[in-house]
Amino acid sequence: MSHQAIESPPFPPVWKRRHLIDLESLSREEIVAILDTAEYFRQHTDGCRNKLPLLTDRTLANLFFENSTRTRNSFSLAAKRLGADTVEFSSSGSSVSKGESFIDTAKTIEALCVDLVVVRHRTPGTPKVLSECLDCSVISGGDGAHEHPTQGLLDILTIRQQRGRLDDLTVALVGDIAHSRTARSNIWGLKKLGAHVIVCGPSTLVSRRWEEVGVEVAHSLDEILPRCDVLNLLRIQFERQSTRPFPSVREYALLYAMNRERMARAKDNILIMAPGPINRGVEVTTDVADGPHSVILNQVTNGLAIRMAAIWLVCTQQRRERDGIA
Amino acid sequence: MSHQAIESPPFPPVWKRRHLIDLESLSREEIVAILDTAEYFRQHTDGCRNKLPLLTDRTLANLFFENSTRTRNSFSLAAKRLGADTVEFSSSGSSVSKGESFIDTAKTIEALCVDLVVVRHRTPGTPKVLSECLDCSVISGGDGAHEHPTQGLLDILTIRQQRGRLDDLTVALVGDIAHSRTARSNIWGLKKLGAHVIVCGPSTLVSRRWEEVGVEVAHSLDEILPRCDVLNLLRIQFERQSTRPFPSVREYALLYAMNRERMARAKDNILIMAPGPINRGVEVTTDVADGPHSVILNQVTNGLAIRMAAIWLVCTQQRRERDGIA
Amino acid sequence: MSHQAIESPPFPPVWKRRHLIDLESLSREEIVAILDTAEYFRQHTDGCRNKLPLLTDRTLANLFFENSTRTRNSFSLAAKRLGADTVEFSSSGSSVSKGESFIDTAKTIEALCVDLVVVRHRTPGTPKVLSECLDCSVISGGDGAHEHPTQGLLDILTIRQQRGRLDDLTVALVGDIAHSRTARSNIWGLKKLGAHVIVCGPSTLVSRRWEEVGVEVAHSLDEILPRCDVLNLLRIQFERQSTRPFPSVREYALLYAMNRERMARAKDNILIMAPGPINRGVEVTTDVADGPHSVILNQVTNGLAIRMAAIWLVCTQQRRERDGIA
Repeated sequence: MSHQAIESPPFPPVWKRRHLIDLESLSREEIVAILDTAEYFRQHTDGCRNKLPLLTDRTLANLFFENSTRTRNSFSLAAKRLGADTVEFSSSGSSVSKGESFIDTAKTIEALCVDLVVVRHRTPGTPKVLSECLDCSVISGGDGAHEHPTQGLLDILTIRQQRGRLDDLTVALVGDIAHSRTARSNIWGLKKLGAHVIVCGPSTLVSRRWEEVGVEVAHSLDEILPRCDVLNLLRIQFERQSTRPFPSVREYALLYAMNRERMARAKDNILIMAPGPINRGVEVTTDVADGPHSVILNQVTNGLAIRMAAIWLVCTQQRRERDGIA
Repeated sequence: MSHQAIESPPFPPVWKRRHLIDLESLSREEIVAILDTAEYFRQHTDGCRNKLPLLTDRTLANLFFENSTRTRNSFSLAAKRLGADTVEFSSSGSSVSKGESFIDTAKTIEALCVDLVVVRHRTPGTPKVLSECLDCSVISGGDGAHEHPTQGLLDILTIRQQRGRLDDLTVALVGDIAHSRTARSNIWGLKKLGAHVIVCGPSTLVSRRWEEVGVEVAHSLDEILPRCDVLNLLRIQFERQSTRPFPSVREYALLYAMNRERMARAKDNILIMAPGPINRGVEVTTDVADGPHSVILNQVTNGLAIRMAAIWLVCTQQRRERDGIA
Repeated sequence: MSHQAIESPPFPPVWKRRHLIDLESLSREEIVAILDTAEYFRQHTDGCRNKLPLLTDRTLANLFFENSTRTRNSFSLAAKRLGADTVEFSSSGSSVSKGESFIDTAKTIEALCVDLVVVRHRTPGTPKVLSECLDCSVISGGDGAHEHPTQGLLDILTIRQQRGRLDDLTVALVGDIAHSRTARSNIWGLKKLGAHVIVCGPSTLVSRRWEEVGVEVAHSLDEILPRCDVLNLLRIQFERQSTRPFPSVREYALLYAMNRERMARAKDNILIMAPGPINRGVEVTTDVADGPHSVILNQVTNGLAIRMAAIWLVCTQQRRERDGIA
């Protein structure tokens, strides 16, 4: 077991949620509460290496209807760091082959005394629907092109660690905004924390309508590059596109790949981020991905911290509600 | 860990088994011993929510040769509640592709210091064969159309919780009796505990031969309905049928689906059960499945309690034999 | 938890490695250090049955790019015996479909605060490459036809247990030497520990070039049989052969299967080993595989002990390096 005493983080008074479905509906204070809790876990577990067994009587179920190794394992490992058990449900098998029985599947999992369901589904809104019909907690692991809240939070935590704040930073999300749940969660979270957000990519992938919510829309990376404090280089999600939205991968890379030449025209302390897995040579070249400005692997580690925080917050609130505390 | 003291349930003197293969060969007293142990675990773990780490040095192997998410995860979670480790073996891979090497596979698993193998196999008798050639414990997770003993036990536990007894209750198993291992385990267990058992379904799915062991055979649900205390609505197992035994799903539902109109003609306190996953609109309509008489989700939770009890009993007996106690 | 006190084995002064990649590069002293540590674990865990939770804050990742149930589960169970957490990464999914991103996948796993990656890959040298670009520990779970170091070690441990030594024993590896990583690891390990090694099989599967490193090459099992103290009967790896190297399975069995008749001409105390899964009737007949000279299941159990030792040694050395001890 951990050589440190098992000390719980302070429960943030602002946190009243049993679920984590999106960032759009969270307040700035709630987002800060998650980030602060994640920092607490990082610092009290030697950077997420050690256990802090606060949830030894709880069970997390991964209910992933889309393939995922990274996010699923990140949630599992975060749960294990907190001493919780995990159980994996996949989408294969007859009980989830029909839309109607999706709720039955989830209710059956809940009846196995699971405390928390992490759900990934191609249909936007699925986590919300689940949260409305289950008594246990629900965390979204990504729903279609809607949101991927823990990815947004881990991106934001990474920036805050590096810069100390989000206010007044200029953060550009580059690439396939239209199909990216990561982009959506970043946009809502970054805006609430005071960053200036630019979405940048081919016009087929970046809608002008983002301007309506105060986001800057750009189609030329070279134009916005000198102003950016952070570049988050989204993966081209070939699997989510029905038609190819740009002439070729080569042309995409020519216009949007972050490479040595573009680095020379960027701010000295620019942060290079990518949600991964990265396509080397497409959205980022190898020298930049592995260079001193890259925080791509920090993002992965922060994913553990954010997921520990999210799991602990929703499970703790669930018990508080059951015990009549809140 | 659990905030409660780790207190072992009393070991029932009647229990002398290292394996759980079926209910047909168990005595009434042995079945009651499992039910009572399951109740102990429920009550000492906040309804199977908390851990009672009595088996922290034991390992359970799931050896499932048929797809299963529910039963497999239920066994895994039950083992984890007891502090045991679990390991999953699937049927893919060359070592189990031939019948001959099935025993070798099992012996190899045992040589990994596994204490308990839970086996599901399409061939009736497989758990029995395994129990005869392994020194470790074996629990059947279902063998072909033979038996599914923990499912039978959890159904019986659910009835006993709701009614306080089995004696003199009339329990009807409705649907595909011919292909259902769940039906067989229910029949043997219910009979031993004194219930009156009716099997009800189309004549193609319900054999008259059940009368030879004291089971009532019926083909009309409407005729028996007023007498029933419990209806256990079996899933139509399309995947186990070589030829379709009834004209259409619609006709089946017309004759056997439990719906609002039939509920009006049932006893006031009738229990509606189903082993799941349920086909809504086929064996049960949504209003009944989600209505006040339904104990379908209780069954799932009781599955955890029954499996905790079965795992603990066979593992404890195994150690007693090794230690020369029994 | 274990009823015994949690006492760490003595850390062998000769051990300075953060990785276990092969046996070819290990010294005799290093191999003995692993064997002795494995014996310690066997004796302090009731033959690998109980836990010795020395690595409760560590996480092992299984990164298997070839199918494996036995080796993967053996590593998982060994890790769990030491109290470590485990996480499974499979080769499916886009992030590992290209060779280029293999390192990215591994670096991402490392960024999840994994302490140890066990890698199996069809390409020889993959574990070595990984060990050079990761800060965490790497253990090879088998790379192509190169080496399978823990298999070699468990075979050697089994012989040492039965005979008390390796020096001057004559050990024959029989069968498909050309495609066998198990053969290679056995050859290097056995030679370093002083055994006389014979490789025996059809000339299409056994190269004369082994003589250059002091290994005896034979094509007739019957000729060498009377001299052998140990026979390690390798599985015919049909899946690794591009062309069939012998006329028929029947002919192979005629020349190389260990059967009752050959046993009569062997030494009285000959040991029969096989890495498994065995093809009964091909490399060994049933009466010999299950007979008194067979230590095939001992090998499986020793796999747990060897993997506990390997995991503990590399993880402990890793922490010592980080703490500036070594």
